[in-house]
Amino acid sequence: MSGAGRPAVGGTRERARAAAFAPATVANVGVGFDILGFAIDGLGDRVTVSRTPFAGRVEIEGVAAPQGMDIPADPARNTATAGLLHLAEELAVPHGFRVRIEKGIPLGSGMGGSAASAVAGVVAANALLDRPLPREKLLHYALIGEAVASGSIHGDNVAPCLLGGLMLVRSVAEGAEDVVPLPVPAELRCVVVHPGFRLDTREARAALAPDVPLKRHVAQSANLAGLLAGLYRSDLALVGRSLADVLIEPQRARLIPGFEAVKRAALGAGALGCSISGAGPSVFAWVDSEAVAKRAKEEMSRAFEAAGAQSVRAWISPIRAAGAVIEE
Amino acid sequence: MSGAGRPAVGGTRERARAAAFAPATVANVGVGFDILGFAIDGLGDRVTVSRTPFAGRVEIEGVAAPQGMDIPADPARNTATAGLLHLAEELAVPHGFRVRIEKGIPLGSGMGGSAASAVAGVVAANALLDRPLPREKLLHYALIGEAVASGSIHGDNVAPCLLGGLMLVRSVAEGAEDVVPLPVPAELRCVVVHPGFRLDTREARAALAPDVPLKRHVAQSANLAGLLAGLYRSDLALVGRSLADVLIEPQRARLIPGFEAVKRAALGAGALGCSISGAGPSVFAWVDSEAVAKRAKEEMSRAFEAAGAQSVRAWISPIRAAGAVIEE
Repeated sequence: MSGAGRPAVGGTRERARAAAFAPATVANVGVGFDILGFAIDGLGDRVTVSRTPFAGRVEIEGVAAPQGMDIPADPARNTATAGLLHLAEELAVPHGFRVRIEKGIPLGSGMGGSAASAVAGVVAANALLDRPLPREKLLHYALIGEAVASGSIHGDNVAPCLLGGLMLVRSVAEGAEDVVPLPVPAELRCVVVHPGFRLDTREARAALAPDVPLKRHVAQSANLAGLLAGLYRSDLALVGRSLADVLIEPQRARLIPGFEAVKRAALGAGALGCSISGAGPSVFAWVDSEAVAKRAKEEMSRAFEAAGAQSVRAWISPIRAAGAVIEE
Repeated sequence: MSGAGRPAVGGTRERARAAAFAPATVANVGVGFDILGFAIDGLGDRVTVSRTPFAGRVEIEGVAAPQGMDIPADPARNTATAGLLHLAEELAVPHGFRVRIEKGIPLGSGMGGSAASAVAGVVAANALLDRPLPREKLLHYALIGEAVASGSIHGDNVAPCLLGGLMLVRSVAEGAEDVVPLPVPAELRCVVVHPGFRLDTREARAALAPDVPLKRHVAQSANLAGLLAGLYRSDLALVGRSLADVLIEPQRARLIPGFEAVKRAALGAGALGCSISGAGPSVFAWVDSEAVAKRAKEEMSRAFEAAGAQSVRAWISPIRAAGAVIEE
């Protein structure tokens, strides 16, 4: 008696509503500017999508966000919905989407908030399709949402947010083909500390000189390659020596009051390395044990407070955290 | 009866003379400027070292080199002997060295000729020590020899020449600690084609702009990371897409008449990627089979000839070739 025990739902099992949770992410990872990122546990955005009868139409039903966060009401300009408009059109979806957004990730924190909304929107909407796409195919639509917020196509937050883990984004020109999961030694943990103030991503980009001295390019490349080799070889000492951003961090550190003290605190607590999360102002550290993670979290937080940060929050996470999930 | 079967040599077994062969190498490997290199089969320098009674003294007994190669006669300025002076002093070697050099690698070919002489000299001399150093400890002395020729310390030829295989040289500041062997999928082969003319390494360096546009740094980094990930994953398609030098090659190609045609010939023959070997003018290609290697070798050679090269030579080699060896 096939099908016994399953509820009879008359032909196709259609969902009328789906909620997706997409995690915060740490992009750049110090030495991988615009090409590396990983998902973290404990913080994320939630987007709930309902079907409507209006094919191709995307409506924003509501937004729950901390005070002071101005979320665009126009679906074409909202990071959680812009990708859905393309998805609905390109796949000729025979219904519409109504979207509720719950922002968990502080805006301008350097923790991939716009990527998380973009991913959660697309993942939730996909669950409502008669034939949902495989996860990798959603990258394209999530990137559209992210681009609305950041002004350009960057996959280093979106890819790990969608797929989980630590990701190398060689290119997004050909879909997910050049998005490569990197191995993460089991003992690695991440500490992320957010000082509570907002740093605009565009301002952080503007702080970067348009050119890189060739010698610095070589040093940064050597560290990037060392980091990858260290991860593949499970050589944490090599990972630690290589997790040293000699290019971007020196240019952005002055935008983050207390950065140098926070970094010193992390390394003093035993962290393998410490740098700016995404465009900042959050700071991340990689550590090789839970004990060091706790110590680093406390001392990094204290250092931010000593530098005047008003509402410091901090998280400890594996670097192999899951990507976006559909909540049942 | 321990020692039975061994010739009785009265206490220590001393060698009076040793010859070392050190292979040609391809540095940069397109996307790893100054940090990647690999050894190739079929071409190299040989250095024969004899003990003399004069502690700390290093003499050049003779040089066999193609016409037109001016090899410095001063041991402190000769790449094959400069490292030996340091080795003799730092280790307080109680004897001297007399050195014969046979240059197999054309000067200014971009195939690591100075590194090979430096490595061969150090490896041969080491074999004469009462307590020979382990191979990794020789890196320091070989780098000194190489620096005499190139004017600066670069390990991307020396490390693979000494140790074999494909090497990431993250740093040589701390000896061999940051020299990391990279995995090479078994089917990979290399084709190297030398057009027969000489390109001065200093001239090739001078052709490089002192700065790199940030966007190009990101693209080159993405390719470097893609190449490493592709090697570790044995993903030859990823290796091929990533073996694309968007930074150095465009600036140096004009120094190599016919480069673009040679590269087209390589890719047309089915190569995964093709770029400049070291500072040039030799060109290398990576291929995934012996059949493609043969075709690429022929067509690349023909393209160089069509561009006016007078004495083209070409080699096919594994990318896991051995490093320097003591010849018995």
